[in-house]
Amino acid sequence: MIYLDHCATTPMSAAALDGYRQAAERFFGNEQSLHGHGEEASHLAGHCRKQLAAIINGSEEGIYFTSGGSDSNITTLLSLAYGRKDHGRHIVTSPFEHPSIGQGLGRLKEEGFTVSVVDVHRNGEICLDSLTSLLHADTILVTICHASSETGVLQPLADIGALLHNHQALLHSDCVQTFTTIPIDVTAAGLDALSLSAHKVQGPKNTGAAYIAPGINWQAVYPGVVHQHGFKPGTLDIPGIASFMEAAVEAANAMDELQDRWRSMQQWLLAQLHPGAYRLFGDRYQRLPHHLALRAVDREGQWIMLECSRRGITISPGSACKTSSSAPPDSLLAMGYTADEAHGLFRISFGRDTTYAELRETASVLNQLAGK
Amino acid sequence: MIYLDHCATTPMSAAALDGYRQAAERFFGNEQSLHGHGEEASHLAGHCRKQLAAIINGSEEGIYFTSGGSDSNITTLLSLAYGRKDHGRHIVTSPFEHPSIGQGLGRLKEEGFTVSVVDVHRNGEICLDSLTSLLHADTILVTICHASSETGVLQPLADIGALLHNHQALLHSDCVQTFTTIPIDVTAAGLDALSLSAHKVQGPKNTGAAYIAPGINWQAVYPGVVHQHGFKPGTLDIPGIASFMEAAVEAANAMDELQDRWRSMQQWLLAQLHPGAYRLFGDRYQRLPHHLALRAVDREGQWIMLECSRRGITISPGSACKTSSSAPPDSLLAMGYTADEAHGLFRISFGRDTTYAELRETASVLNQLAGK
Repeated sequence: MIYLDHCATTPMSAAALDGYRQAAERFFGNEQSLHGHGEEASHLAGHCRKQLAAIINGSEEGIYFTSGGSDSNITTLLSLAYGRKDHGRHIVTSPFEHPSIGQGLGRLKEEGFTVSVVDVHRNGEICLDSLTSLLHADTILVTICHASSETGVLQPLADIGALLHNHQALLHSDCVQTFTTIPIDVTAAGLDALSLSAHKVQGPKNTGAAYIAPGINWQAVYPGVVHQHGFKPGTLDIPGIASFMEAAVEAANAMDELQDRWRSMQQWLLAQLHPGAYRLFGDRYQRLPHHLALRAVDREGQWIMLECSRRGITISPGSACKTSSSAPPDSLLAMGYTADEAHGLFRISFGRDTTYAELRETASVLNQLAGK
Repeated sequence: MIYLDHCATTPMSAAALDGYRQAAERFFGNEQSLHGHGEEASHLAGHCRKQLAAIINGSEEGIYFTSGGSDSNITTLLSLAYGRKDHGRHIVTSPFEHPSIGQGLGRLKEEGFTVSVVDVHRNGEICLDSLTSLLHADTILVTICHASSETGVLQPLADIGALLHNHQALLHSDCVQTFTTIPIDVTAAGLDALSLSAHKVQGPKNTGAAYIAPGINWQAVYPGVVHQHGFKPGTLDIPGIASFMEAAVEAANAMDELQDRWRSMQQWLLAQLHPGAYRLFGDRYQRLPHHLALRAVDREGQWIMLECSRRGITISPGSACKTSSSAPPDSLLAMGYTADEAHGLFRISFGRDTTYAELRETASVLNQLAGK
């Protein structure tokens, strides 16, 4: 089997699995408990916070562990919005966010907040002029991902941060797809908050983290929670967190070398595909290095995915988190594609162990499917 | 180290750890994906639903996997309340619930629901007459745990279910402490919904399940979620779920034998403690078989815990989920104890590997601490 759906989920690395086992055996206590077992667990949680803060150049006090990317997104959006609701109720987002951003914002809309969606250029980048025009006195939050899993296009976070510098609105970014692939520096980018997931970087599922810069006012979603300063109820999953950090540190250390390798593989694969049958969605260079969002001309992306699956190649028709939906992705419509064109979307994303031989076979199958 | 805080959390069993590793290696796909890797993961999730449904004599369609007991409690309470809000907005609970029940109900109160708290007998059982008197035409939900982790007292779920039989109110029970320790039969008990946690039964942390009987109307907390029929966003943690089921099946199979052994150990330990120094909170027999809620006469439970910890024995002063609180437990005040008496609370809970030698040492240390 050739697995090229690493943006949906990745297998755990050997180090992450080993870290999980070791922490489960040695640090199983409840870190809220004040006895020895609890203190050991609490100590390890603190160490993991320091490790994660170092990777994103943030402060360990701003790290909150969660049950994954969706949980990070929803809990952070609600906590920030509640914390600033006296300053306004307007939020700006993009049309290519992960579904969990839409779920969190949907809930906030039910509670009286309003949401505007920024315009997008044909290459998949957000339009900064559009963002400027959407900022009003009551705008409290802008949430724009670092890279969408659908298009793979990188967003100019530092430019957005600079644009918001003199505005009260906070900047949150879903960095699930870029974490340990593209450098993230919360301080340099002017990021107030971000969301991360472990299982996209060869860590465990059901584990992630949110970052909220210390000093930013937020309000707990549920009253009376004692864990993690009230951010999220539930016993901390120390084995999951330790395993997440094993995977994250491993990936962060390999980032530079992998980026170069992936960029070469990405451009090589693109060159193998018949230009009459497959086109690229989004910018060719301003994108995740291990990701291609492709359009099958005259075919449905779903069909391409199923035919590849029959031949032992796992790729994705779009986002795994909205498989039930047959509507074309909003991201592509916003970029100016027709619904027919958007339905051609499928997505290839490499992992650390992906080889040129696997890409060669994939290109061959894809060209075959297109009759080329 | 002697670990006697199994009601707070347990170490993973060898089978659970092995199940985690195997599933992480072989079934890492995103179960929402329609390709081969996704289908394999989805198939395993279905198998786990069947296994869990069999243990509680429920229907697999009613199983929803969560990020643990707190998540199960909060998500289920909100989903049920939203689903029935057109029938009323009144909810009944007990004074000895896990903090997450209070957090979920706290949120619902902010949204206009009202909550009543049932009276409790001196032995720790809820008063059925009080429950009857609290049921009104607009009562939509009763949530009472199967056993409180603070008192360990078992609640008469079947009697409560029978009492609600001709009332519209649904019955939810937090069964985190009793799962695989006391038999749970959702059908016989007339239970509409329940909450479970994996890490209390030697499974992984950050994993749990909710059960909502099929046919019961509930409404998603967040709009637009596709995972698990909308119950909860986020990629399913197949390794965590498979590991949970390894632990749960193992524990369920050992339940009868363990219950007998634990009951004997419980009564034996109680008999070793100096009656002038330590008293039992709650009913002596209607309680979790592996749990003692004790009162240190003239001492703080917190002090007893810390002194035991210094001597290598891990016990608990109360609930690990409210360590920051110095208020005496509501459960004990509701049972008629004074604040001073309630401050004496500490808790001992056995695991599968707990030995009489460990209990003997614990009793000796406790009697020593009391100067007896």
